Amino acid sequence: MEIERKFLIGTMPDLEQYPKKHFVQGYLSTSPTVRVRREEEEYFLTYKGRASEDHMAREEYNLPLTKEAFAHLLPKCDGNLISKTRYFIPLGKNKEGSELTAELDVFDAPFEGLVFAEVEFPTVEEARSFEAPDWFGEDVTDDRRYYNSYLSQCKIS
Amino acid sequence: MEIERKFLIGTMPDLEQYPKKHFVQGYLSTSPTVRVRREEEEYFLTYKGRASEDHMAREEYNLPLTKEAFAHLLPKCDGNLISKTRYFIPLGKNKEGSELTAELDVFDAPFEGLVFAEVEFPTVEEARSFEAPDWFGEDVTDDRRYYNSYLSQCKIS
Repeated sequence: MEIERKFLIGTMPDLEQYPKKHFVQGYLSTSPTVRVRREEEEYFLTYKGRASEDHMAREEYNLPLTKEAFAHLLPKCDGNLISKTRYFIPLGKNKEGSELTAELDVFDAPFEGLVFAEVEFPTVEEARSFEAPDWFGEDVTDDRRYYNSYLSQCKIS
Repeated sequence: MEIERKFLIGTMPDLEQYPKKHFVQGYLSTSPTVRVRREEEEYFLTYKGRASEDHMAREEYNLPLTKEAFAHLLPKCDGNLISKTRYFIPLGKNKEGSELTAELDVFDAPFEGLVFAEVEFPTVEEARSFEAPDWFGEDVTDDRRYYNSYLSQCKIS
């Protein structure tokens, strides 16, 4: 089960100091989500089940692929491929003692300029009580326009 | 983890008395296996990881799909679609007390005439010590020509 919230960015932090990974991903299906992803030199098939009503929790399986299987599956994906760099920004401990990390995604073309951050939580309660840092912007957890699967289906003009 | 052995059929049992399900399935990838399957009115995405050296055990995830997602994914599959009827034939208890069932698959075109049975076990030890009923034929657990994924890639002449 993945429990997370998603935010736009109010003030961009200096990203150079943080660890990062480059992702390329596409969608074979969006309901449920069946995604293929390259994370640097690792390859995964991801299945995400139906989201909970508050959009914060959903069943998720990350299953390993070979490089060859990824290359075979990527052309079967629909719509736009998504290429982005994810920065891992430590947020310190919350009041329950969990170490939280903002995963800040900076998108490449055709979504250049798009940036948002996700924070994953061990429990729904901690997700609800999360106090966002000052540099976070609007909470867009419920906004499907910021789903990567939605971006994959956008018409690019 | 799925632990199973596969056998050809020596003497065909009278199938009419057994419960059955009709399957249609295709393969998006064969290494690892990424399969879509319709089982009567249920739909699944299945991932199977690498098999153990003796071909008896492999990691398997069966994840629900909607009818619409199945219909969307099926045309992305490679090679032949597989259509078959699976009969569930009780084999009684083994000496460890586990109730065993033969799942006997009768294939439709383009593989009409092909029949084999699989038996699933709770442990590798029980798979090894399994005493096949008289009506079973050759053990083809290790023979990749009887993998459904291999059939999906056969050239049909």
